[in-house]
Amino acid sequence: MSENPAPESSTPTSSARLFVEAALGQDVVVTLPGPASHYLSGVMRLGVGDTVRLFDDRSGEWLARLVTVGRKAVGVVCEARLRERETVPDLWLCAAPLKRGRIDWLAEKACELGVARLVPVTTRRTVVDKLNLDRLRAHMIEAAEQCGRTALPELGEPVTLAMLLRDWPAGRTLVFADETGGISLVQAAKPGPAGILIGPEGGFTPDERTAIRAVPGAIGVSLGPRILRADTAAAVAVGVWQALAGDW
Amino acid sequence: MSENPAPESSTPTSSARLFVEAALGQDVVVTLPGPASHYLSGVMRLGVGDTVRLFDDRSGEWLARLVTVGRKAVGVVCEARLRERETVPDLWLCAAPLKRGRIDWLAEKACELGVARLVPVTTRRTVVDKLNLDRLRAHMIEAAEQCGRTALPELGEPVTLAMLLRDWPAGRTLVFADETGGISLVQAAKPGPAGILIGPEGGFTPDERTAIRAVPGAIGVSLGPRILRADTAAAVAVGVWQALAGDW
Repeated sequence: MSENPAPESSTPTSSARLFVEAALGQDVVVTLPGPASHYLSGVMRLGVGDTVRLFDDRSGEWLARLVTVGRKAVGVVCEARLRERETVPDLWLCAAPLKRGRIDWLAEKACELGVARLVPVTTRRTVVDKLNLDRLRAHMIEAAEQCGRTALPELGEPVTLAMLLRDWPAGRTLVFADETGGISLVQAAKPGPAGILIGPEGGFTPDERTAIRAVPGAIGVSLGPRILRADTAAAVAVGVWQALAGDW
Repeated sequence: MSENPAPESSTPTSSARLFVEAALGQDVVVTLPGPASHYLSGVMRLGVGDTVRLFDDRSGEWLARLVTVGRKAVGVVCEARLRERETVPDLWLCAAPLKRGRIDWLAEKACELGVARLVPVTTRRTVVDKLNLDRLRAHMIEAAEQCGRTALPELGEPVTLAMLLRDWPAGRTLVFADETGGISLVQAAKPGPAGILIGPEGGFTPDERTAIRAVPGAIGVSLGPRILRADTAAAVAVGVWQALAGDW
């Protein structure tokens, strides 16, 4: 459960590990802006010649060496690719926004658990009207940095449930947590493209459940005899799916 | 995913639902102290004659009616048992204390997911030295109140890993998350008494892993190819176990 995973390569490196928006590559020089430079020089106390691991969600993880250290920016050069970008199962998590930081926690867990795509879905009983996508992405990035990930979940634009169902791709299993009962998630889990749909704290309305069931391939599942908070249901459903139909 | 589950009984009642330390029973009168009385009279605006659902982790859930409402206490009488106390699988979660509120979150999730017993375990790399058991229990109680539970996980006294292993009951499967690899949790899951052991953020030491493996029935499991934070590993491991070997 290490929060500072060592790279698979044995190349000596600091424990510093950062996501960068820029595309990385052999000998590519990258200028890291304020927050990253403060972390590397101020927090990690790294200087010119020290190394850091970088990943860009595209080309994997790179060993990079600091070549310039300024007050406002740090320059690094990518010296060696430590790992290719990981592959993750084609699993979406479609979840209604939640209150009180629970959605932030859910974004973190979705990243740790290897969700390919996180889609915020607005439903009738969704009580959260505004959603800070930048903050959600920041939580996913921090989780990816700490857990040694080389891939980030794609963060989809928020959609209404009607839009999600209308545009649901043919051939992608739609598994939704049905408080009124359904088959066990264990029976529903099967390989292939899938999406797990979790309602808000108030659950889906009967009309919404009818609309969801009308999607070809939609499966209503039970998550056991106990009522789970929406964030718990989402994280555990993703975990069970990864264990049974994903890449565990 | 409702956070205000309706009782199985159709008896009209307010949405107020509280855990009480006192033993409940038919016609038993209970005096609810400050925080509970403030919640009922100040927050929920209930008065004499209104109803509340109470559970005591022993006798199930009761419909109770307010008979006195004072500034510092509310008196209620138990009128009818709405539900028997639920049974939960005999699953322990043994987890090292964690930082930054993650242990509070874990206590909440352990309750929602129906863990029978939560045992804080100190290991070599455990960085958290003090643990507020009252706060942990408060998080479990809040989760039980919100999720309609009639049973609470037993909160064990913190123990060292050596004590936990020394006193591990014969016949109870010991499943531990082994970062060095193990069989899939899916293969390890089997009915019967079990305990899931999750290390701290820094993981177990090699000596600790050796000591754990020496326990009869100990099984090292993998939680998939991605590094999980300790709190994520614990919640998902419990969820997968409940789905495959528990009562899903």
